[in-house]
Amino acid sequence: MDKTKIDANFFIPMPVVLVGTQVSGKANFMTAGWCSRANARPPMILCGIGNHHFTHRGIEETKTFSVNLPSSKLLEKTDYCGIVSGEKADKSRLFDVFYGSLKTAPMISECPVCIECRLVQSIPLPTNTIFIGEMAGVYANGNVMKEGKPDFEAIDPLFLTMTDNRYWTLGKNAGDAWRAGRSLISNDRES
Amino acid sequence: MDKTKIDANFFIPMPVVLVGTQVSGKANFMTAGWCSRANARPPMILCGIGNHHFTHRGIEETKTFSVNLPSSKLLEKTDYCGIVSGEKADKSRLFDVFYGSLKTAPMISECPVCIECRLVQSIPLPTNTIFIGEMAGVYANGNVMKEGKPDFEAIDPLFLTMTDNRYWTLGKNAGDAWRAGRSLISNDRES
Repeated sequence: MDKTKIDANFFIPMPVVLVGTQVSGKANFMTAGWCSRANARPPMILCGIGNHHFTHRGIEETKTFSVNLPSSKLLEKTDYCGIVSGEKADKSRLFDVFYGSLKTAPMISECPVCIECRLVQSIPLPTNTIFIGEMAGVYANGNVMKEGKPDFEAIDPLFLTMTDNRYWTLGKNAGDAWRAGRSLISNDRES
Repeated sequence: MDKTKIDANFFIPMPVVLVGTQVSGKANFMTAGWCSRANARPPMILCGIGNHHFTHRGIEETKTFSVNLPSSKLLEKTDYCGIVSGEKADKSRLFDVFYGSLKTAPMISECPVCIECRLVQSIPLPTNTIFIGEMAGVYANGNVMKEGKPDFEAIDPLFLTMTDNRYWTLGKNAGDAWRAGRSLISNDRES
């Protein structure tokens, strides 16, 4: 297939999360799509946050943050948290907030899964900072757990694509990881 | 909603990519779900790779790598690249490979979007390394571009959830980013 070089400002599809911080003692939440697991053992997660964001200040202040996974039902409030800065609006009462063992990483009761993180490392880049946090506690609603595992159809997460700037739901189950490609191993051995 | 503390080894939903490297002069590809934009300007992307992976060696060797976005049609080959290490199998002929300006970051013709990256920084963590790369070139098929922008329905990307270990397609368009939450701004002003 012929390829054309396109604008380098490309974004792979992103899971949508709400990053929780405490700034000057008050809970704040920011929508983020630059979020990924960072380390397997111990479990660590990372978020890329704009250097001038209010959330950046919050993470630096308490050395803790939370990552909350909103379901598609929370689309409006989630988008709102990406439009309005905590510097201009008080987002502390937008959700029912709870705290875990870290005490300074506000989490969102309405989100089916919430992770509280202890800051491990900050990687400053030209316009953003990568914050890596150890996952100190993960909290889930009972109705999104199935046989002890998170059930992502029940979680009903959101995804974001840019630069078309659209949210998406999770689609169809397309196959099993570490199974779907096994037939190619046999072919390989036979050849 | 009442929350229960669950296993800290939780994974947020992940976009599925194939990371391309050259190891001892030969192209190799590894499936990865720990991938995110890292910086806005200049565009940078990051991947979390297990410290003992063959791909880790390739990135260290050439200081370049590629991030390829497979469509759901490539599910079997994509999963295969996550099952079998390049140390044991030659994956250089699994795809039609092409190179861009960096010369040492092999890309996959069959993937609708491919990104070649110049290594900027490596962040060693206990079991994984975060490789941050500047996006030196992005290549796309003409049929996934719509009015100059990537069309994600046409790209038809894959997602991975763990620990249920399932691949998923992109679901329904759920709303517009930086628009869906605007009504809450008005409410805020009125209150």
